[in-house]
Amino acid sequence: MDTTSSSPATKPYVLGIDIGGTNTVFGIVDARGNVLATNSIKTQSYPIFEDYIKALHEKASDLIKAYGAEGKIFGIGIGAPNGNYNTGEIVFAPNLPWSGNVPLASALSEAFGGIPVAVTNDANAAAIGEMTYGAARGMKDFIMITLGTGVGGGVVIDGKMVYGTDGMAGELGHITSRHNGRQCGCTRRGCLETYCSATGVATTAREFLQARANEASLLRNIPIEDITSKDVYDAAVAGDKLAKDVFDFTGKILGEALADFASFTSPEAFIIFGGLAKSGEFLMRPLRESFEANNLPIHKNKIKILLSELKESDAAVLGASALGWEAK
Amino acid sequence: MDTTSSSPATKPYVLGIDIGGTNTVFGIVDARGNVLATNSIKTQSYPIFEDYIKALHEKASDLIKAYGAEGKIFGIGIGAPNGNYNTGEIVFAPNLPWSGNVPLASALSEAFGGIPVAVTNDANAAAIGEMTYGAARGMKDFIMITLGTGVGGGVVIDGKMVYGTDGMAGELGHITSRHNGRQCGCTRRGCLETYCSATGVATTAREFLQARANEASLLRNIPIEDITSKDVYDAAVAGDKLAKDVFDFTGKILGEALADFASFTSPEAFIIFGGLAKSGEFLMRPLRESFEANNLPIHKNKIKILLSELKESDAAVLGASALGWEAK
Repeated sequence: MDTTSSSPATKPYVLGIDIGGTNTVFGIVDARGNVLATNSIKTQSYPIFEDYIKALHEKASDLIKAYGAEGKIFGIGIGAPNGNYNTGEIVFAPNLPWSGNVPLASALSEAFGGIPVAVTNDANAAAIGEMTYGAARGMKDFIMITLGTGVGGGVVIDGKMVYGTDGMAGELGHITSRHNGRQCGCTRRGCLETYCSATGVATTAREFLQARANEASLLRNIPIEDITSKDVYDAAVAGDKLAKDVFDFTGKILGEALADFASFTSPEAFIIFGGLAKSGEFLMRPLRESFEANNLPIHKNKIKILLSELKESDAAVLGASALGWEAK
Repeated sequence: MDTTSSSPATKPYVLGIDIGGTNTVFGIVDARGNVLATNSIKTQSYPIFEDYIKALHEKASDLIKAYGAEGKIFGIGIGAPNGNYNTGEIVFAPNLPWSGNVPLASALSEAFGGIPVAVTNDANAAAIGEMTYGAARGMKDFIMITLGTGVGGGVVIDGKMVYGTDGMAGELGHITSRHNGRQCGCTRRGCLETYCSATGVATTAREFLQARANEASLLRNIPIEDITSKDVYDAAVAGDKLAKDVFDFTGKILGEALADFASFTSPEAFIIFGGLAKSGEFLMRPLRESFEANNLPIHKNKIKILLSELKESDAAVLGASALGWEAK
């Protein structure tokens, strides 16, 4: 058997890497989407990019050795904030320790002796994972929406990920929801992610608590600056009216945005992923209502809004790994 | 020579048809995009769809005969409001005389003895024309914006027209520009086309004239309900401040929308087409300024805004005809 050839037959695994502001999680994944072994390093511990690459290479190599997968890695797929598919770089990611553009794909490929590496942003990686292994299997046209600290988007048209002319397409968290609205980290105002991210939910809760000063709420037991989206969810579960209204407001704005996105690409479905997606019907009911109320007549009652089917703990690594099969 | 085969060698022409609310224009086009002969019928003269198909077939057949192109038509491409590429139907087009869905492609193909017919909406047809013969030649990712009575969009990704799961993608005139804004014919409020179409420009002029009642303007010489976008343009050319402000407002809103569209698909360029595009720098200057002011940092000063290069009189027929080459 020719062990130097690069076919999935002789190299049956990919390495999936999910780079987050806090942790970098990586795992060995087989062609059926089984995450066979994982480990992680602390992203923030490596302010110098070269040190980060060295540490990531070492720890991932250890994992590969321990699993007996040496020489059997077909490719490496990475999901990273502001990951550029065309260039393999991370482009000005505000939540990562390295400033400017860093040559992620080339540096890691070199460390791994030439194994091909593909990079995209985390939402695109989730979309590829969902298309390969999750709720979007068999779908040719769908839009992935990730609701985490920020809001991300991944657009799939005719079975292909949309990267755009510069590799940076799908920045759906930065579509304008409210002109002259909340200040966004991207420099602009009123972006979708200022309202519909976990951070946005906490901001809305603070605004509601201040605007409705005479209304009792379980959230008043928490120092106002410490309130998180999880606190709002817990209060809603406990029946808190103000907390439920926060989700109604969030769902309304997200539904308006998805209706606009539907006019753009006429998808078969939206797949909702990320921490806030776990809010269940508190978010999904107002989201569906607002979506249908704002849809064009030609789109009404035709487009599904689905929750991700990827196992939360593995999802990011799995999504990134799927990209490893197409790395060149 | 086998004259029954369907290759461009034996059938060197396509028929391009542009269906508008007033006129239906059609023309014989060769593979180089030369419009060789054209004629038209009045769309509104045929309230019964079958009569319309009969008249269109007769007049187009006459044109084909007169040009000596019998048996030499490879395919027929049609641009029509609310044309559905997947089904070949026109779907609830408010400005056309036939209610509900009409089976345009199948009816016309049958009338023409089986010549394949492809249908799409008028903005998509313009995008295909621009990609085949115009300003977007060689571009893989661009967005067509048509500024006419309404606002239309055509999205091209990786060299392919985006039709979406139901054949109705690219309704960019119905992206929300202002929540709870102007009433749109689509049933919703604040759609881009209520501001940035020819109709929207006239509405803005009326609003400005009423809000700035003490300001002189050449537009006050025209009965307010009769003002058209052409009148606003003429007044702007004559130096009228209020008329110029109307274009500033229109360009500002369109620029905001294009910046959002850029976040969606990261195109190489926008191509602007249609009557309002002839307003030149009155529209283009505020449009470019607003676009760059509202762009994400990653998109700033990278994405072109170009005017259509298609000859106005032929453009619609040419765009539709380009679709004829891929009709099946």
